[in-house]
Amino acid sequence: MSITLDRSRFIEAMETQAEIGGTEGGGLHRLALSEVDGAARDWFVEQLTAAGLSVRIDEFGNVFGRREGTDPDAPPVLMGSHLDSQPYGGIYDGALGVVAALEFVRSLNDVGQETTRPIEVVNWTNEEGSRFQPTMQGSGVWVGEHDLSEEYRKTDEDGQTVKQALETVGYKGSVPAEPQQSYDSYLELHIEQGPSLDREGHDVGVVTGVVGLVWGATTFHGQANHSGSTPMTYRSDALVAAADLVTSVRRLASTLGPETVGTVGFVDVEPNSINVIPGEVTVTWGFRDPDDAVLEQALQQVIEESEAAARREGVEWEWEQRSRAESVRFSDRIIDTVELAAADRGYDYTRLFSGGVHDAAHLTAVCDSAMVFAVSEDGKSHTEAEYTSWEDCYAAADTYANAALALATDEPLHEE
Amino acid sequence: MSITLDRSRFIEAMETQAEIGGTEGGGLHRLALSEVDGAARDWFVEQLTAAGLSVRIDEFGNVFGRREGTDPDAPPVLMGSHLDSQPYGGIYDGALGVVAALEFVRSLNDVGQETTRPIEVVNWTNEEGSRFQPTMQGSGVWVGEHDLSEEYRKTDEDGQTVKQALETVGYKGSVPAEPQQSYDSYLELHIEQGPSLDREGHDVGVVTGVVGLVWGATTFHGQANHSGSTPMTYRSDALVAAADLVTSVRRLASTLGPETVGTVGFVDVEPNSINVIPGEVTVTWGFRDPDDAVLEQALQQVIEESEAAARREGVEWEWEQRSRAESVRFSDRIIDTVELAAADRGYDYTRLFSGGVHDAAHLTAVCDSAMVFAVSEDGKSHTEAEYTSWEDCYAAADTYANAALALATDEPLHEE
Repeated sequence: MSITLDRSRFIEAMETQAEIGGTEGGGLHRLALSEVDGAARDWFVEQLTAAGLSVRIDEFGNVFGRREGTDPDAPPVLMGSHLDSQPYGGIYDGALGVVAALEFVRSLNDVGQETTRPIEVVNWTNEEGSRFQPTMQGSGVWVGEHDLSEEYRKTDEDGQTVKQALETVGYKGSVPAEPQQSYDSYLELHIEQGPSLDREGHDVGVVTGVVGLVWGATTFHGQANHSGSTPMTYRSDALVAAADLVTSVRRLASTLGPETVGTVGFVDVEPNSINVIPGEVTVTWGFRDPDDAVLEQALQQVIEESEAAARREGVEWEWEQRSRAESVRFSDRIIDTVELAAADRGYDYTRLFSGGVHDAAHLTAVCDSAMVFAVSEDGKSHTEAEYTSWEDCYAAADTYANAALALATDEPLHEE
Repeated sequence: MSITLDRSRFIEAMETQAEIGGTEGGGLHRLALSEVDGAARDWFVEQLTAAGLSVRIDEFGNVFGRREGTDPDAPPVLMGSHLDSQPYGGIYDGALGVVAALEFVRSLNDVGQETTRPIEVVNWTNEEGSRFQPTMQGSGVWVGEHDLSEEYRKTDEDGQTVKQALETVGYKGSVPAEPQQSYDSYLELHIEQGPSLDREGHDVGVVTGVVGLVWGATTFHGQANHSGSTPMTYRSDALVAAADLVTSVRRLASTLGPETVGTVGFVDVEPNSINVIPGEVTVTWGFRDPDDAVLEQALQQVIEESEAAARREGVEWEWEQRSRAESVRFSDRIIDTVELAAADRGYDYTRLFSGGVHDAAHLTAVCDSAMVFAVSEDGKSHTEAEYTSWEDCYAAADTYANAALALATDEPLHEE
C-alpha cells in the first residue's frame, strides 16, 4: 500500500503559506503568535476544515486536525511540525512538515483511502523560541515537560505575555494542553538545517535521534593595561588565554568522536579597545554528540583546557555550565518504518542524528517517535537564504506520507 | 648648582589638584574642558600668578606661566604636561608633570635663584583624547601638527565643539597657539604607565624616545551556521581563524625584538551567539617598537599570519591599516642632562623608551626634548587604581627640576 501526493497542490500550499509573513528577501518573518502567525494559523485551520478534519485548539494554541480511522479507539498517528519562523528566517523551516502532513490527508481523501488508526496533523506553538523563550514551548507544555501557567507568564521584549499573545491572535483554545488519549506514534518532517545530506548527495534523511549537548562558558581574568607601555613579559592577557581555548575547542571536537561538534560562538572582551590589553574575556563553548559519555568527556576536557590556557598566560579563570541536554534516541520501530518508506519510494537515503533539537525530541516522552529530514542546500538555516528544491521537498514529504500510512494502517512496509 | 624642592608643598599641591574632579574611588574624572577641568585651570593660573609668573593663554587653551631669565632674549626652557584626565583615571597622570614644574619655580623663588634662560611652565589642552579626539590635541596645534580651525570643530559625544567648550570654560585665549619665539628645550615629567621601573626596582626613568606604532585590523569572513547541525569538516569558522591570529600576534611580539609589544585589544564577532558558528570576526592588532624597521617587519608578518590563519580555516579575509606613527628619538643633549640630574641627586635610574605617546613627542618638532618617568606601581594606568608613592613622585620631580635648572642656567651637570 502506498500513497502518491499531489505535487502541484503541495507546492502551491507551500507557496501560499510562504506569503503569510513573507519578506522582500524571499524569506519568512513569522514570529510566534504575531499577527502573521495568527493569519497562517487561520489559513491552516481553513485547510484542515476543508479537508474534512475535525479541528481542536488547546489552551496553549497547539492546533490539531483529526482524520478518524476505521477503529476510532486505536491510538492515533500524530504528525506535523510548526508554522512559526525565526526573524527573517526561511520559508521551509517548520512549515514544510505541517504542509506535507496536510497534503498527506488530502491525498488520502482523493483516493478514499481509509486507515485503521486516526491521523492527527499538528502545528506546535512557538517552536523557534525567538519571541518567547524557551524553544519548542508548545510541545514542551503538551508532553508535560513545562508547566502551562509558568509558560503563560513568559514575556516578549515588549513585556507581552504568551497568554496575552494567545488571546490577541485568538488561539487560546479550551482543550487541555496535554494528550487526550494514548498515541501510537509521532512523525515529524523538517529541513536538515545542516549540510550533510546536500554535500553527500542524498535525497532524504532518516533521523535516528537528537544529539545531546553541553553548553557553558569560561571567563579569564587578566590585567587590563596600556598596550604600549606594558612589556610582553609583564602581561596577563585574558584574550590570549581565550584564543588558546578557542583553538582547543576546535581540536577537542576533532578528537573526541567522529560526530562530535564543538563551537565557541560568543566572545565578550573587556574593555575591548585597540589600545588596551584585554583584562577580562568570556567565551562560551558548546559540544554536541549522540553519545552522552562523549559529552561528559568533552566537558571534563574543556575545563582542563581552560585551566591549561589560564596557567600558560598567568590569568585567573572560572567556568560555568549553562545548559545540558541528554541525547535522544528515536524509536527503532518508527525509524525502520521511515527507512523502508524511503527505500520503497526509491530514494537515496541515509540515517543521521539531528544536530538541532525539534518538537519530536519532546514527543518521545509520549509515544514512539522519529523524523524525516529534507535536504538543506549548503545547510543554510535561520536565514532568508535557506533553500530546499521542490524536488527535495517532495522526496521528504513522500517518505513522510508513506511512513505515516504504514503506521496508520499497521501494514509494515517491506523492502523489495 | 642644584635646587631642593619643598616636599610638603609639592605633596599638598598634588593633593589639592586631585580634589578638583576627584572621585569616590580615589581617582580623577577631569575630562578636557569640562567644568572641573576649568576649575583645575583656574587653580593653576592662581598658583602661577602667586608665584610671580606672567600667565598667557593661547587660542587653544594651552596655559603658559613664564618666569623671566637674566637674559630675557634667550630661548626659554619649557616644561609641563597636562591637567586633564581619562574618565575615572588616576590623580598622577599628567598632573604630576604640571605640579612638579610649578613647585620647581616656587623653589627657585624661595632661594632667589635666577636662571639665564626664561622658564615656562605649560598645561597642554586635551592630552587624553577621551572627550575630544585626537589625543595630545593642544600640543599638536601648538607645534603645527594639527590645524587650529579643524581642531576647533571636533565634537564630543553631545555634539559640543572644542571651540564651544573652550569658550564655556573661559579658556579660549587670544595668544596665537604657536611658539612666539624659539625654545631651548622641552622637558616633561609623566608617570610611566607601565610596570618596568616598578618591577625592576628603579627610582626614576630617563626617557630616550617614544616607540613607533602600527595599528590595523583583520576581518575574517566565514560561514555563519547552526552550531549543532554543521559537522566540523563543513565549517568555515571565522573565530577559529581569528584565535589563530591572536596567538600569532603574541608569538610575533616575542620574536621580532626584545622591546616589541604586540596586542589584540578589540574583537567583534558576528552574530555572537552561543549557538551559531561565527560568520564574521574582526580583530585589531597593534605593534610598537623603538625601531621603525621592526614595525615594518611586524606589519608584513601580521598580514602573512592573517592569510595563513584564513587559509587553514578556509575563510575569506581582508586587512586594513588604521594608524602608523614613526618612533621618536629625544635629544641626546636633554637625555644626558636628565640622566646626570638623576645621578647627581643619587637616584637609581634607567634609560627606557616610552611605550605610550606624550606631548613631548610633538614638541620634538619645535625644540630639543626629553622626558622623566616616575614609577607606576604595577603599571596600572587610566584607572582610579593608578598609584605612585610620594617618594617616587618626589624622586622624579627632583630629577626634573634639577635637569631644568641645568638647562636654564646653561650649567652642565657633571657626574661625581
